[in-house]
Amino acid sequence: MPLWHVYHPPRAYTPEQKQQLSTDITAFYTRFGLPKFYVMVLFHEIEPGSFHLGGEPSDSAVRIVVEHLARQTEDPELRRRTREALADLLAPHTTGRGLYCEFHIDETPQNLWMIDGLTPPPPGSEVEQLWARENRPSPY
Amino acid sequence: MPLWHVYHPPRAYTPEQKQQLSTDITAFYTRFGLPKFYVMVLFHEIEPGSFHLGGEPSDSAVRIVVEHLARQTEDPELRRRTREALADLLAPHTTGRGLYCEFHIDETPQNLWMIDGLTPPPPGSEVEQLWARENRPSPY
Amino acid sequence: MPLWHVYHPPRAYTPEQKQQLSTDITAFYTRFGLPKFYVMVLFHEIEPGSFHLGGEPSDSAVRIVVEHLARQTEDPELRRRTREALADLLAPHTTGRGLYCEFHIDETPQNLWMIDGLTPPPPGSEVEQLWARENRPSPY
Repeated sequence: MPLWHVYHPPRAYTPEQKQQLSTDITAFYTRFGLPKFYVMVLFHEIEPGSFHLGGEPSDSAVRIVVEHLARQTEDPELRRRTREALADLLAPHTTGRGLYCEFHIDETPQNLWMIDGLTPPPPGSEVEQLWARENRPSPY
Repeated sequence: MPLWHVYHPPRAYTPEQKQQLSTDITAFYTRFGLPKFYVMVLFHEIEPGSFHLGGEPSDSAVRIVVEHLARQTEDPELRRRTREALADLLAPHTTGRGLYCEFHIDETPQNLWMIDGLTPPPPGSEVEQLWARENRPSPY
Repeated sequence: MPLWHVYHPPRAYTPEQKQQLSTDITAFYTRFGLPKFYVMVLFHEIEPGSFHLGGEPSDSAVRIVVEHLARQTEDPELRRRTREALADLLAPHTTGRGLYCEFHIDETPQNLWMIDGLTPPPPGSEVEQLWARENRPSPY
């Protein structure tokens, strides 16, 4: 967590543009104290004939699915801030480049999650801070 | 929303068959007043060696994952009607053609969802109706 | 259900290694009485430039997403046992081979799920046992 799936048209992103988007996403989460290695971004290229938007093939839409585990909230105001912050983050990589963009975030059970054979430590805990400093998981 | 992932064997669907399935799916949702552009259908071709069913490679199974955001319900009777309607919709594209078919629908948080930098309007609202008529999102 | 998505680097798994992982996963669930054909494992090869871990391209990480439908639990102790059992199952296929591995399980609504046009029978029911014995769904 977070896990990002970016479904995009062929050639929408050069390797450098993928790198920049992944850098921006990672910076967003480390600002909240998350270990860098928690952030995974997977890019999936989908041909227009396999990417239908409103019943028509599309070559200019990006659909992003995000899974949140390490930080979750039911608070509507915090959720508004989260979705708006991610929309701002995404704008230069999508709408700002003429790519239509839809995304949603899901929150899945924190206690059904493992990293490298270890149960991730509680949010904000000392162990999580250690993992963040060392940028790797370690037994605790 | 709705987002459909269709995982299928190579050559299970011609471009015309993908188009027909996507048309049928889109018609299903617009009947309930959803804007056409809310409907995204992504087709993912999976080789038999990468598609295991019951521990064996499969070249004739389709697995569909659906995410519902704009309309959700906890009501068991409405859910029964929804899943049966989608099974009927899918039959001519799957079981009716000799393709084994499993699907499930997930409902994810409505307030962690953005379209083209905008928070989607409430279900059934005037803004949603405007978006449906114009078939595009607009600030409100 | 269960549905397993295995996102992995190119050439991380030979066809034989995919078969072995899929066999191990299937055996895990049939031990609890699930029909064999309930288990689907999809392998998705992702190039390093499209698989970013902590903001860097990765060629040695595996990310697994599991969807549980036929059996679910809110009990923290049962969840701990589940996630640890799956980590043990995965170790020889991932960490034991030098592949970094993260996974999470989601539980989605049981009554929004269909198999081959049929509503799956209740967990542990006689019909489910019949489906398991015959290793195929049948009307009931």
